[in-house]
Amino acid sequence: MAEPAPIDFYFDFISPYAYFASKLIGPVAARVGRRANWRPFLVGVPVIQVMGLRPLMETPLKSDYILEDLARLSRHFDIPILLDTNFASNSRAAARAFYWLADRDARAAEEFARSAFDALWRDGRDISDPDVVVALAGTVGADGRQLAEALRGERLRQRLIDEVTAAVARGVFGSPFFLVDGARYWGTDRLAHLESALKGSADSS
Amino acid sequence: MAEPAPIDFYFDFISPYAYFASKLIGPVAARVGRRANWRPFLVGVPVIQVMGLRPLMETPLKSDYILEDLARLSRHFDIPILLDTNFASNSRAAARAFYWLADRDARAAEEFARSAFDALWRDGRDISDPDVVVALAGTVGADGRQLAEALRGERLRQRLIDEVTAAVARGVFGSPFFLVDGARYWGTDRLAHLESALKGSADSS
Repeated sequence: MAEPAPIDFYFDFISPYAYFASKLIGPVAARVGRRANWRPFLVGVPVIQVMGLRPLMETPLKSDYILEDLARLSRHFDIPILLDTNFASNSRAAARAFYWLADRDARAAEEFARSAFDALWRDGRDISDPDVVVALAGTVGADGRQLAEALRGERLRQRLIDEVTAAVARGVFGSPFFLVDGARYWGTDRLAHLESALKGSADSS
Repeated sequence: MAEPAPIDFYFDFISPYAYFASKLIGPVAARVGRRANWRPFLVGVPVIQVMGLRPLMETPLKSDYILEDLARLSRHFDIPILLDTNFASNSRAAARAFYWLADRDARAAEEFARSAFDALWRDGRDISDPDVVVALAGTVGADGRQLAEALRGERLRQRLIDEVTAAVARGVFGSPFFLVDGARYWGTDRLAHLESALKGSADSS
Protein backbone atom coordinates (compact mmCIF):
# COMPACT_ATOMS: atom_id res chain seq x y z
CA MET A 1 0.00 0.00 0.00
CA ALA A 2 1.31 3.47 -0.89
CA GLU A 3 2.20 5.82 1.94
CA PRO A 4 -0.84 8.01 2.78
CA ALA A 5 -0.66 11.67 1.75
CA PRO A 6 1.13 13.95 4.21
CA ILE A 7 -0.52 16.78 6.13
CA ASP A 8 0.64 20.00 4.47
CA PHE A 9 1.32 22.35 7.37
CA TYR A 10 1.39 25.98 6.21
CA PHE A 11 2.59 28.58 8.67
CA ASP A 12 4.17 31.98 9.08
CA PHE A 13 6.85 32.29 11.75
CA ILE A 14 5.32 35.61 12.86
CA SER A 15 2.03 33.89 13.75
CA PRO A 16 1.74 33.07 17.47
CA TYR A 17 -1.00 30.55 16.70
CA ALA A 18 1.41 28.81 14.31
CA TYR A 19 3.95 28.68 17.14
CA PHE A 20 1.50 26.59 19.16
CA ALA A 21 0.81 24.49 16.05
CA SER A 22 4.55 23.87 15.60
CA LYS A 23 4.46 22.03 18.94
CA LEU A 24 1.17 20.21 18.28
CA ILE A 25 1.45 19.05 14.67
CA GLY A 26 4.03 16.33 15.35
CA PRO A 27 1.95 14.44 17.93
CA VAL A 28 -1.24 14.85 15.85
CA ALA A 29 0.50 13.53 12.70
CA ALA A 30 1.91 10.59 14.66
CA ARG A 31 -1.52 9.69 16.08
CA VAL A 32 -3.11 9.56 12.61
CA GLY A 33 -0.15 7.87 10.93
CA ARG A 34 0.70 10.70 8.56
CA ARG A 35 3.79 12.74 7.87
CA ALA A 36 3.70 16.54 8.35
CA ASN A 37 5.01 18.54 5.40
CA TRP A 38 6.19 21.89 6.79
CA ARG A 39 5.59 24.84 4.42
CA PRO A 40 6.46 28.33 5.69
CA PHE A 41 4.81 31.17 3.78
CA LEU A 42 4.03 34.84 4.26
CA VAL A 43 0.50 35.18 5.61
CA GLY A 44 0.45 38.91 4.85
CA VAL A 45 0.18 38.16 1.13
CA PRO A 46 -3.30 36.54 1.24
CA VAL A 47 -4.51 38.62 4.20
CA ILE A 48 -3.52 42.05 2.93
CA GLN A 49 -3.09 41.66 -0.83
CA VAL A 50 -5.78 39.11 -1.70
CA MET A 51 -8.39 39.44 1.04
CA GLY A 52 -7.94 43.17 1.58
CA LEU A 53 -7.82 42.85 5.37
CA ARG A 54 -5.44 44.34 7.94
CA PRO A 55 -2.63 42.62 9.81
CA LEU A 56 -4.05 40.93 12.92
CA MET A 57 -2.18 43.06 15.46
CA GLU A 58 -3.06 46.29 13.62
CA THR A 59 -6.79 45.56 13.75
CA PRO A 60 -8.64 47.62 16.37
CA LEU A 61 -10.53 45.62 19.04
CA LYS A 62 -9.04 42.33 17.83
CA SER A 63 -5.42 43.02 18.81
CA ASP A 64 -6.18 43.35 22.56
CA TYR A 65 -8.36 40.28 22.49
CA ILE A 66 -5.68 38.21 20.76
CA LEU A 67 -3.31 38.75 23.70
CA GLU A 68 -6.01 37.52 26.09
CA ASP A 69 -6.71 34.51 23.88
CA LEU A 70 -3.02 33.64 23.48
CA ALA A 71 -2.45 33.77 27.24
CA ARG A 72 -5.30 31.28 27.72
CA LEU A 73 -4.08 28.99 24.92
CA SER A 74 -0.59 29.06 26.43
CA ARG A 75 -2.01 27.72 29.70
CA HIS A 76 -4.36 25.32 27.91
CA PHE A 77 -1.57 23.73 25.83
CA ASP A 78 1.06 24.25 28.55
CA ILE A 79 3.29 25.96 25.97
CA PRO A 80 5.00 29.12 27.28
CA ILE A 81 4.86 32.11 24.92
CA LEU A 82 6.27 35.64 25.10
CA LEU A 83 3.44 38.10 24.60
CA ASP A 84 5.60 41.22 24.56
CA THR A 85 7.61 40.00 21.59
CA ASN A 86 7.81 41.91 18.32
CA PHE A 87 4.59 41.02 16.52
CA ALA A 88 5.65 43.26 13.64
CA SER A 89 8.74 41.14 12.98
CA ASN A 90 8.94 39.82 9.45
CA SER A 91 9.69 36.26 8.58
CA ARG A 92 11.14 36.51 5.07
CA ALA A 93 14.72 35.61 6.02
CA ALA A 94 13.59 32.66 8.14
CA ALA A 95 11.23 31.33 5.46
CA ARG A 96 13.91 31.66 2.77
CA ALA A 97 16.46 29.88 4.96
CA PHE A 98 13.93 27.10 5.53
CA TYR A 99 13.57 26.40 1.79
CA TRP A 100 17.34 26.62 1.24
CA LEU A 101 17.76 23.99 3.95
CA ALA A 102 14.82 21.89 2.70
CA ASP A 103 16.51 21.49 -0.69
CA ARG A 104 19.51 19.98 1.11
CA ASP A 105 18.05 18.14 4.13
CA ALA A 106 14.33 18.07 4.88
CA ARG A 107 14.85 16.99 8.48
CA ALA A 108 17.30 19.83 9.16
CA ALA A 109 14.83 22.31 7.66
CA GLU A 110 12.10 21.14 10.04
CA GLU A 111 14.48 21.34 13.01
CA PHE A 112 15.42 24.84 11.92
CA ALA A 113 11.75 25.81 11.75
CA ARG A 114 11.15 24.61 15.31
CA SER A 115 14.18 26.56 16.53
CA ALA A 116 13.13 29.71 14.66
CA PHE A 117 9.68 29.52 16.30
CA ASP A 118 11.29 29.09 19.72
CA ALA A 119 13.76 31.91 19.03
CA LEU A 120 10.93 34.36 18.36
CA TRP A 121 8.14 33.22 20.67
CA ARG A 122 10.05 31.68 23.58
CA ASP A 123 13.33 33.63 23.58
CA GLY A 124 12.29 36.96 22.03
CA ARG A 125 15.04 37.00 19.42
CA ASP A 126 14.68 39.07 16.25
CA ILE A 127 14.36 36.50 13.47
CA SER A 128 13.91 39.24 10.87
CA ASP A 129 17.71 39.69 11.18
CA PRO A 130 19.50 37.44 8.61
CA ASP A 131 22.46 37.06 11.02
CA VAL A 132 20.14 35.54 13.64
CA VAL A 133 18.66 33.22 11.02
CA VAL A 134 22.10 32.10 9.84
CA ALA A 135 23.16 31.41 13.43
CA LEU A 136 20.00 29.31 14.03
CA ALA A 137 20.59 27.38 10.80
CA GLY A 138 24.16 26.73 11.98
CA THR A 139 22.81 24.81 14.97
CA VAL A 140 21.18 22.31 12.58
CA GLY A 141 24.38 21.90 10.57
CA ALA A 142 24.01 24.50 7.81
CA ASP A 143 27.06 26.12 6.24
CA GLY A 144 26.62 29.68 7.48
CA ARG A 145 28.66 31.35 4.75
CA GLN A 146 26.76 29.62 1.94
CA LEU A 147 23.38 30.34 3.50
CA ALA A 148 24.25 34.00 4.13
CA GLU A 149 25.17 34.35 0.47
CA ALA A 150 21.99 32.63 -0.68
CA LEU A 151 19.93 34.96 1.55
CA ARG A 152 21.38 37.92 -0.34
CA GLY A 153 20.56 36.43 -3.75
CA GLU A 154 17.62 36.72 -6.11
CA ARG A 155 17.12 32.98 -6.56
CA LEU A 156 16.05 32.26 -2.97
CA ARG A 157 13.95 35.42 -2.91
CA GLN A 158 12.05 34.14 -5.96
CA ARG A 159 11.76 30.68 -4.44
CA LEU A 160 9.79 32.08 -1.49
CA ILE A 161 7.58 34.16 -3.79
CA ASP A 162 6.76 30.97 -5.74
CA GLU A 163 5.95 29.06 -2.54
CA VAL A 164 3.63 31.82 -1.31
CA THR A 165 1.90 32.04 -4.70
CA ALA A 166 1.40 28.27 -4.74
CA ALA A 167 -0.01 28.32 -1.20
CA VAL A 168 -2.53 31.05 -2.01
CA ALA A 169 -3.49 29.17 -5.21
CA ARG A 170 -4.35 26.17 -3.00
CA GLY A 171 -6.67 28.35 -0.90
CA VAL A 172 -4.35 28.93 2.06
CA PHE A 173 -5.19 32.26 3.69
CA GLY A 174 -4.26 32.01 7.36
CA SER A 175 -1.66 30.68 9.74
CA PRO A 176 -1.54 27.93 10.76
CA PHE A 177 -3.32 26.20 7.90
CA PHE A 178 -3.51 22.49 7.18
CA LEU A 179 -4.29 20.73 3.90
CA VAL A 180 -4.82 16.99 3.71
CA ASP A 181 -6.91 14.67 1.53
CA GLY A 182 -8.47 17.68 -0.20
CA ALA A 183 -9.73 19.25 3.04
CA ARG A 184 -8.63 22.59 4.51
CA TYR A 185 -8.30 23.38 8.21
CA TRP A 186 -7.56 26.89 9.47
CA GLY A 187 -6.28 27.52 12.97
CA THR A 188 -4.81 25.57 15.83
CA ASP A 189 -8.33 24.90 17.11
CA ARG A 190 -9.16 22.93 13.93
CA LEU A 191 -6.37 20.39 14.48
CA ALA A 192 -8.87 18.39 16.51
CA HIS A 193 -11.23 18.25 13.51
CA LEU A 194 -8.35 17.20 11.24
CA GLU A 195 -7.40 14.46 13.68
CA SER A 196 -10.95 13.22 13.93
CA ALA A 197 -11.38 13.20 10.12
CA LEU A 198 -8.12 11.32 9.56
CA LYS A 199 -8.88 8.82 12.30
CA GLY A 200 -12.19 8.13 10.55
CA SER A 201 -10.41 7.54 7.23
CA ALA A 202 -7.76 5.35 8.89
CA ASP A 203 -10.45 3.18 10.53
CA SER A 204 -12.23 2.60 7.22
CA SER A 205 -9.10 1.78 5.19
CA MET B 1 -24.25 34.14 48.65
CA ALA B 2 -25.05 36.41 45.70
CA GLU B 3 -25.91 34.83 42.37
CA PRO B 4 -22.75 34.57 40.24
CA ALA B 5 -22.50 36.92 37.23
CA PRO B 6 -24.23 35.70 34.07
CA ILE B 7 -22.45 34.83 30.82
CA ASP B 8 -23.17 37.68 28.42
CA PHE B 9 -23.81 35.96 25.10
CA TYR B 10 -23.45 38.40 22.19
CA PHE B 11 -24.56 37.23 18.78
CA ASP B 12 -25.82 38.29 15.39
CA PHE B 13 -28.63 36.20 13.91
CA ILE B 14 -26.86 36.27 10.53
CA SER B 15 -23.81 34.49 11.98
CA PRO B 16 -23.85 30.72 11.33
CA TYR B 17 -21.32 30.22 14.13
CA ALA B 18 -23.72 32.00 16.48
CA TYR B 19 -26.45 29.58 15.37
CA PHE B 20 -24.34 26.70 16.68
CA ALA B 21 -23.66 28.71 19.84
CA SER B 22 -27.40 29.25 20.34
CA LYS B 23 -27.70 25.46 20.77
CA LEU B 24 -24.57 25.08 22.91
CA ILE B 25 -24.73 28.00 25.35
CA GLY B 26 -27.61 26.59 27.43
CA PRO B 27 -25.89 23.29 28.31
CA VAL B 28 -22.54 25.07 28.94
CA ALA B 29 -24.18 27.63 31.23
CA ALA B 30 -26.00 24.86 33.11
CA ARG B 31 -22.77 22.89 33.62
CA VAL B 32 -20.98 25.89 35.16
CA GLY B 33 -23.98 27.05 37.18
CA ARG B 34 -24.41 30.39 35.43
CA ARG B 35 -27.23 32.11 33.60
CA ALA B 36 -26.80 33.08 29.92
CA ASN B 37 -27.73 36.68 29.13
CA TRP B 38 -28.67 36.79 25.42
CA ARG B 39 -27.63 40.02 23.65
CA PRO B 40 -28.22 40.23 19.90
CA PHE B 41 -26.21 42.91 18.12
CA LEU B 42 -25.09 43.80 14.59
CA VAL B 43 -21.65 42.34 14.01
CA GLY B 44 -21.19 44.43 10.86
CA VAL B 45 -20.73 47.54 12.99
CA PRO B 46 -17.46 46.50 14.68
CA VAL B 47 -16.25 44.44 11.71
CA ILE B 48 -16.82 46.99 8.97
CA GLN B 49 -17.04 50.35 10.73
CA VAL B 50 -14.54 49.92 13.59
CA MET B 51 -12.08 47.27 12.40
CA GLY B 52 -12.22 48.24 8.72
CA LEU B 53 -12.63 44.64 7.58
CA ARG B 54 -15.01 43.05 5.06
CA PRO B 55 -18.08 40.94 5.74
CA LEU B 56 -17.05 37.31 6.18
CA MET B 57 -18.85 35.97 3.13
CA GLU B 58 -17.56 38.79 0.93
CA THR B 59 -13.92 38.05 1.78
CA PRO B 60 -12.05 36.23 -1.02
CA LEU B 61 -10.54 32.84 -0.07
CA LYS B 62 -12.27 32.85 3.31
CA SER B 63 -15.86 32.55 2.09
CA ASP B 64 -15.30 29.15 0.41
CA TYR B 65 -13.44 27.86 3.41
CA ILE B 66 -16.19 28.94 5.80
CA LEU B 67 -18.68 26.66 4.03
CA GLU B 68 -16.28 23.73 4.41
CA ASP B 69 -15.72 24.57 8.07
CA LEU B 70 -19.45 24.96 8.79
CA ALA B 71 -20.24 21.58 7.20
CA ARG B 72 -17.67 19.94 9.49
CA LEU B 73 -18.94 21.77 12.59
CA SER B 74 -22.49 20.73 11.72
CA ARG B 75 -21.42 17.07 11.79
CA HIS B 76 -19.20 17.61 14.84
CA PHE B 77 -21.98 19.18 16.94
CA ASP B 78 -24.73 17.13 15.25
CA ILE B 79 -26.62 20.36 14.51
CA PRO B 80 -28.09 20.51 10.98
CA ILE B 81 -27.51 23.79 9.15
CA LEU B 82 -28.57 25.09 5.74
CA LEU B 83 -25.50 26.20 3.85
CA ASP B 84 -27.34 27.60 0.84
CA THR B 85 -29.25 30.09 2.96
CA ASN B 86 -29.04 33.83 2.44
CA PHE B 87 -25.82 34.85 4.17
CA ALA B 88 -26.47 38.44 3.16
CA SER B 89 -29.69 38.55 5.18
CA ASN B 90 -29.80 41.33 7.71
CA SER B 91 -30.84 40.87 11.28
CA ARG B 92 -32.02 44.33 12.28
CA ALA B 93 -35.73 43.45 12.52
CA ALA B 94 -35.03 40.29 14.51
CA ALA B 95 -32.64 42.04 16.90
CA ARG B 96 -35.10 44.90 17.45
CA ALA B 97 -37.94 42.46 18.08
CA PHE B 98 -35.75 40.65 20.62
CA TYR B 99 -35.24 43.80 22.72
CA TRP B 100 -38.90 44.74 22.46
CA LEU B 101 -39.76 41.29 23.82
CA ALA B 102 -36.96 41.38 26.41
CA ASP B 103 -38.47 44.51 27.99
CA ARG B 104 -41.69 42.55 28.48
CA ASP B 105 -40.62 38.95 29.13
CA ALA B 106 -36.96 37.87 29.15
CA ARG B 107 -37.81 34.20 28.73
CA ALA B 108 -40.03 34.87 25.70
CA ALA B 109 -37.23 36.95 24.16
CA GLU B 110 -34.80 34.05 24.49
CA GLU B 111 -37.33 31.63 23.02
CA PHE B 112 -37.88 34.04 20.15
CA ALA B 113 -34.10 34.22 19.56
CA ARG B 114 -33.87 30.43 19.34
CA SER B 115 -36.74 30.32 16.89
CA ALA B 116 -35.28 33.13 14.74
CA PHE B 117 -31.98 31.21 14.53
CA ASP B 118 -33.84 28.05 13.51
CA ALA B 119 -35.97 29.98 11.02
CA LEU B 120 -32.89 31.27 9.19
CA TRP B 121 -30.38 28.44 9.55
CA ARG B 122 -32.60 25.35 9.71
CA ASP B 123 -35.68 26.40 7.73
CA GLY B 124 -34.22 28.97 5.30
CA ARG B 125 -36.77 31.67 6.09
CA ASP B 126 -36.02 35.32 5.43
CA ILE B 127 -35.77 36.89 8.87
CA SER B 128 -34.90 40.28 7.38
CA ASP B 129 -38.63 40.52 6.60
CA PRO B 130 -40.48 42.21 9.53
CA ASP B 131 -43.58 40.13 8.77
CA VAL B 132 -41.62 36.92 9.31
CA VAL B 133 -40.20 38.33 12.55
CA VAL B 134 -43.65 39.33 13.81
CA ALA B 135 -44.98 35.85 13.01
CA LEU B 136 -42.11 34.22 14.92
CA ALA B 137 -42.68 36.53 17.88
CA GLY B 138 -46.34 35.53 17.78
CA THR B 139 -45.38 31.91 18.52
CA VAL B 140 -43.88 33.02 21.87
CA GLY B 141 -46.95 35.03 22.76
CA ALA B 142 -46.16 38.51 21.45
CA ASP B 143 -48.91 40.86 20.36
CA GLY B 144 -48.20 41.01 16.64
CA ARG B 145 -49.90 44.36 16.00
CA GLN B 146 -48.01 46.13 18.80
CA LEU B 147 -44.68 44.63 17.76
CA ALA B 148 -45.22 45.50 14.09
CA GLU B 149 -45.88 49.09 15.10
CA ALA B 150 -42.81 49.20 17.35
CA LEU B 151 -40.68 47.82 14.49
CA ARG B 152 -41.69 50.80 12.37
CA GLY B 153 -40.79 53.31 15.09
CA GLU B 154 -37.70 55.35 15.93
CA ARG B 155 -37.58 54.29 19.59
CA LEU B 156 -36.80 50.61 18.95
CA ARG B 157 -34.40 51.55 16.16
CA GLN B 158 -32.45 53.71 18.63
CA ARG B 159 -32.61 50.97 21.26
CA LEU B 160 -30.70 48.59 18.97
CA ILE B 161 -28.14 51.28 18.08
CA ASP B 162 -27.52 51.81 21.81
CA GLU B 163 -27.13 48.07 22.40
CA VAL B 164 -24.63 47.74 19.55
CA THR B 165 -22.67 50.79 20.75
CA ALA B 166 -22.54 49.36 24.28
CA ALA B 167 -21.36 45.97 22.97
CA VAL B 168 -18.54 47.51 20.93
CA ALA B 169 -17.55 49.67 23.94
CA ARG B 170 -17.15 46.42 25.91
CA GLY B 171 -14.76 45.06 23.26
CA VAL B 172 -17.21 42.79 21.45
CA PHE B 173 -16.16 42.46 17.81
CA GLY B 174 -17.33 39.07 16.57
CA SER B 175 -20.22 36.63 16.73
CA PRO B 176 -20.64 34.65 18.84
CA PHE B 177 -18.87 36.48 21.65
CA PHE B 178 -19.01 35.73 25.36
CA LEU B 179 -18.18 38.02 28.28
CA VAL B 180 -18.00 36.73 31.83
CA ASP B 181 -16.01 37.66 34.94
CA GLY B 182 -14.04 40.24 32.93
CA ALA B 183 -12.85 37.72 30.32
CA ARG B 184 -13.73 37.75 26.61
CA TYR B 185 -14.22 34.67 24.45
CA TRP B 186 -14.70 34.90 20.69
CA GLY B 187 -16.11 32.01 18.69
CA THR B 188 -17.96 28.78 19.29
CA ASP B 189 -14.60 27.02 19.65
CA ARG B 190 -13.77 29.13 22.72
CA LEU B 191 -16.83 27.94 24.68
CA ALA B 192 -14.66 25.07 25.91
CA HIS B 193 -12.14 27.56 27.34
CA LEU B 194 -14.95 29.52 28.98
CA GLU B 195 -16.33 26.35 30.52
CA SER B 196 -12.94 25.29 31.78
CA ALA B 197 -12.26 28.75 33.28
CA LEU B 198 -15.63 28.86 35.04
CA LYS B 199 -15.29 25.33 36.32
CA GLY B 200 -11.95 26.35 37.82
CA SER B 201 -13.55 29.34 39.54
CA ALA B 202 -16.50 27.25 40.76
CA ASP B 203 -14.14 24.67 42.28
CA SER B 204 -12.18 27.32 44.17
CA SER B 205 -15.23 29.20 45.48
